[in-house]
Amino acid sequence: MPDPRFYRRAGPFRLADLAGRCGARLAAACDPNLLIHDVATIETATSGDIVYFADPAYVLALASSRCGACITTEELAPRAPAGCAVLVTTDPRAAYAEVGALFYPEPPLSTLSQNVDIAADAVLGEGCVRAPGAVIGAGAIIGKRSSIGANAVIGPGVVVGDDCRIGANTTLAYCLVGNRVVIHPGVQIGQDGFGFVSTDDGLRKVPQLGRVIIHDDVEIGANSTIDRGAAGDTVIGAGTKIDNLVQIAHNVEIGSRCIIVSQAGIAGSCRIGDGVVVGGQVGIVDHVRVGDGAQIAGQTGVTGDIGPGEVVMGYPARPIRQFWREQAALSQLTKRDK
Amino acid sequence: MPDPRFYRRAGPFRLADLAGRCGARLAAACDPNLLIHDVATIETATSGDIVYFADPAYVLALASSRCGACITTEELAPRAPAGCAVLVTTDPRAAYAEVGALFYPEPPLSTLSQNVDIAADAVLGEGCVRAPGAVIGAGAIIGKRSSIGANAVIGPGVVVGDDCRIGANTTLAYCLVGNRVVIHPGVQIGQDGFGFVSTDDGLRKVPQLGRVIIHDDVEIGANSTIDRGAAGDTVIGAGTKIDNLVQIAHNVEIGSRCIIVSQAGIAGSCRIGDGVVVGGQVGIVDHVRVGDGAQIAGQTGVTGDIGPGEVVMGYPARPIRQFWREQAALSQLTKRDK
Amino acid sequence: MPDPRFYRRAGPFRLADLAGRCGARLAAACDPNLLIHDVATIETATSGDIVYFADPAYVLALASSRCGACITTEELAPRAPAGCAVLVTTDPRAAYAEVGALFYPEPPLSTLSQNVDIAADAVLGEGCVRAPGAVIGAGAIIGKRSSIGANAVIGPGVVVGDDCRIGANTTLAYCLVGNRVVIHPGVQIGQDGFGFVSTDDGLRKVPQLGRVIIHDDVEIGANSTIDRGAAGDTVIGAGTKIDNLVQIAHNVEIGSRCIIVSQAGIAGSCRIGDGVVVGGQVGIVDHVRVGDGAQIAGQTGVTGDIGPGEVVMGYPARPIRQFWREQAALSQLTKRDK
Repeated sequence: MPDPRFYRRAGPFRLADLAGRCGARLAAACDPNLLIHDVATIETATSGDIVYFADPAYVLALASSRCGACITTEELAPRAPAGCAVLVTTDPRAAYAEVGALFYPEPPLSTLSQNVDIAADAVLGEGCVRAPGAVIGAGAIIGKRSSIGANAVIGPGVVVGDDCRIGANTTLAYCLVGNRVVIHPGVQIGQDGFGFVSTDDGLRKVPQLGRVIIHDDVEIGANSTIDRGAAGDTVIGAGTKIDNLVQIAHNVEIGSRCIIVSQAGIAGSCRIGDGVVVGGQVGIVDHVRVGDGAQIAGQTGVTGDIGPGEVVMGYPARPIRQFWREQAALSQLTKRDK
Repeated sequence: MPDPRFYRRAGPFRLADLAGRCGARLAAACDPNLLIHDVATIETATSGDIVYFADPAYVLALASSRCGACITTEELAPRAPAGCAVLVTTDPRAAYAEVGALFYPEPPLSTLSQNVDIAADAVLGEGCVRAPGAVIGAGAIIGKRSSIGANAVIGPGVVVGDDCRIGANTTLAYCLVGNRVVIHPGVQIGQDGFGFVSTDDGLRKVPQLGRVIIHDDVEIGANSTIDRGAAGDTVIGAGTKIDNLVQIAHNVEIGSRCIIVSQAGIAGSCRIGDGVVVGGQVGIVDHVRVGDGAQIAGQTGVTGDIGPGEVVMGYPARPIRQFWREQAALSQLTKRDK
Repeated sequence: MPDPRFYRRAGPFRLADLAGRCGARLAAACDPNLLIHDVATIETATSGDIVYFADPAYVLALASSRCGACITTEELAPRAPAGCAVLVTTDPRAAYAEVGALFYPEPPLSTLSQNVDIAADAVLGEGCVRAPGAVIGAGAIIGKRSSIGANAVIGPGVVVGDDCRIGANTTLAYCLVGNRVVIHPGVQIGQDGFGFVSTDDGLRKVPQLGRVIIHDDVEIGANSTIDRGAAGDTVIGAGTKIDNLVQIAHNVEIGSRCIIVSQAGIAGSCRIGDGVVVGGQVGIVDHVRVGDGAQIAGQTGVTGDIGPGEVVMGYPARPIRQFWREQAALSQLTKRDK
C-alpha cells in the first residue's frame, strides 16, 4: 500500500466501475459489485487489491498471489487463479494506469502549496538549522542537528534523520532520509519516474506511488536526480556515495558502500549489489542486476546482468580484458589493411 | 523580429554606423545613411533588416531574401542581390554578433531584478497556486489552475498555460508554455545558447534572440536544460516526454509524442520528427535531422541524418543490425587471433 | 594554507596526539611534543605542517619538501628526509583524512545558516542588483554592477567581481569569481569533491580544503557543477566557455579560451591547456593532461594524456583519423564475413 504520508487513496470502487473507467470487460462469473480497495503488485497484493498481469513470466507469481482482481488480456485470462476476478483488455498496463489514477488522483493544488515557509505541523529536531528561504512542508520531520540549506524545499511528509546536511536549492519529496546523509546543492529527489503507456490520447503516465529510501551515511552529489518508485521504492543503501549529475531512475535499488561516479545513469528497476563501483558516464539499461563488488569502467553501456566481482568495460559492456583485446585487434586490422 | 515581450530593440541605426561598429567596409554605391531597423535571418528578413551571409549554400536563399542589407565577405559580396546594401568583412558572423549586440543590448540590471516576489503587472489565472519563495516577473502570465513550485523563478514576459505544474527550484525565462505541461524540479529553461564567434578579444556570444516554445502535454524531467533559440525558437512538440538531466540546445525543434530518455543531449538546430525515441545518454550533433518514428539506442552518437523509422545504435550511429554484426565480427576476430 | 575566508583551522596539535587520532605510530627519535600547525601538500608545506607520502613517485619532491612531519608507510619511512618527523601507518591517505578532519572540523551549523537574507558584513558594490530570495552569506563581496539572480545562494566569504551575472537558483560556495563572468541558472559551484578513502567504517571523505577560482569572462552553462579543490584549487581560465550540465571535478585546472560542450565530464586533477575544445558528453579520467589547442570529439573517452593540437575521437580516445580508419575496417569486416 502506498505510504499514507505521501498518498491519499480514494475509493473503494466497485469492480464494474473500474472496468468502465479503463474500458475493460468483466470476465464471466465475476461479481460486478465486488469492492476493490487499492492497486498493488502481484507480489504484495491482498484480497482487496487489483493488479495487472501482462507478462506470462509472472504466471507462477500470480498463481500464489492473494490479489482480489487482476487486469489482463483475453489470452492470459485463463491463467488467473481461481477466486481472482478478471478484467479483460488489450493493454493491461494502460488500463492499470487508468485505475491507478482513479485510486490516487493528483493531489489538490492546495496541498502542493502553502502560504508559510514552515508548515505548522512540521517537526524540526533539537539543534536543527534552517537557512533563509528553505521551505518545509506539512508533516515533514527533520532530525536533530540537521541543516537545511538556503532555498531548499522539503516536501510534505518527508523525513530527514539526524546530523544530515541538505544543500541549498535542493528539492526533497516522497522520501525518507537516514542519519548523517549529505545531499549537495541542486539535488532533486522524489519526482515521479519516467514511466508511460502509449494510448490513443498520447503517452500517459503510469501512477508512481512509491518513495525514495536513503539509508545512513549516503552522500549525493550536486544536481543529481533520484526518481521515486512506481510501485515499491527507490533505495540507496547505507554508506553509498553518489557523485554529481547522476541519474537514478524509479525503483532502482542500490546496495551499501557503492561508488557511483559523475554523470552515470541507472535506468528503472536495476538492482545494484554492495560495494559496486559505477564509473563516470556509465549507462545501465533497465531491470539489470549487478552483483556485489562488480566494477564498471567509465562510459560503459551495460545492457545485461553483471556477476559479482566482474570488471567490465565497453559499449556494450564486456569483460575488461576482452575489451582491450578487441581494441588491439581492431588497431592491428588497420595496420594489415595498409 | 524578436518577441517584444522578451527583447527591447534599440535603433534604428545608419548603415555607416553599423559598419563602423563591426569594422566592416561599405560596398561601393551603398547609401551610408540607409536606416537599418533590425537584425534578421536571410529567410525572415524584410527591407529594414540586416542579415549575414557567410555560407555559399545560402546563395539561392539570399537571392530571394527581402533583406535591406547583408554582411558578407569580399568573395561572396557579388552574390548579394541587386538593391541589397553590402557590408564587407572577413568574418561576417562575428560582425553580425557586434551588430546584433547593438540592436539588442544587455537589458539594464533593473529589469532583471525587482524588489517584489510577484511583479505588479503579472497575471495569475483563477485557481492558480504559488508556493512560498516563487518569484514571478514583470508581465508574466500564469494560466488557470496551474501551480508554481516553491522557489521557482518565472522570468519577465513568460507565459504558462492552464493546468500546468511547474516544479520547485526551476527557472523559466524567454518561454511560452502550453497547457497541462509538467516541469519537474530544477529544470532551467530559456537561458541563452552556447553560440560564440572567435574574435581577437576572445570568444564572443552571438546574440540569442529567440524563445522556447513548449506545446501542450509536454513533460520535462528534473534538472534538464533547454536553451532558447538564437534567431527563431527552440520548440518542444505536443505530448513529448523528456526525462531527467537532458540537454536541448538552441533552435532544436522536437516533434510531438517523442520520448527523450535521461541524460540525452541534442545539439543546436537539430530537427527531431514525431514519435521519435531517443535513448539515454544519446548525443546528437548539431543540425541533424531525425525522421518520424526513428529510434536511437542508448549512448548512441548521432553524427548525421536518420531517416523515418530507422533504428540506430553505436558510436557513430549505424543501423542497429549492422552494429551488432560488427560487434560479433570484432569478438570473432580476437578468437582467430588466439 | 587553506583560505581563512572559507576555513577555520583548529590546533596546533602535538605530534603524539595526531598519531593517536589516526592510529599511526611515531617513528623512533621523533619528538611526541612537536607542535603541528596545519596539513599541507608535499610541495607547499612549511616546517609546521604535516603531509602524507604514499607514492614512491614523490620521493624526490619529499626530499626537498620543508614539511615538519609526514605520514607514510613502514616501507617508505626511510625515504623521509632528515629532520622530518614520521608517523607510520598502513594507509597514509586514510590517516591524513583523519588528521585533516581534526584541523578542519565541519563548521558549526550556525555558520552554515543565518536568519537574514543578506549577512550584515556582506559587501554589495555600487550598482549591484539582488533579485528576490537571493541569499548572501557572511563576508561575501559582490562587485560593481553585478546581478544576483532570484533564489541564488552566495556562500560565506565568496567574492564575485564586477559586471557579473549570477543566474537564478545557483549556489556559489568557496569560490572567487572574476569580472564579467556569466553563471547560468542552476549552476552549483564549490561543493566538496568526490574523494574518499576506504576504511573499516566505510568510505570516509578526504578533507576538501581548496577553492574554485573562476577568471574573467568565463561563462558557465545551466545546471553545471564545479567542485572545489581538495588541496589547492579548481581553476577555470579566462575567457573559457562551459556549456550546460558539465561536470568539473576537484582540482581540475582549465586554461583560457577553452570551449567545453554540454554534458562533458572532467575528472579530478586534470590539466586542460589553453584553447582546448572538449566536445559534448566527453569523459576525461582523472590526472590527464590535455595540451593547448587540442580538440576532443563528442562522446570521446579520454584515458591518457593528449598532446598540444592533437585531434582525438573514440572510446578510448585515439587520433581521429585512426578512429575513422578503424570504423571503416570494422565495417569492411562484416562484408567479408557475409
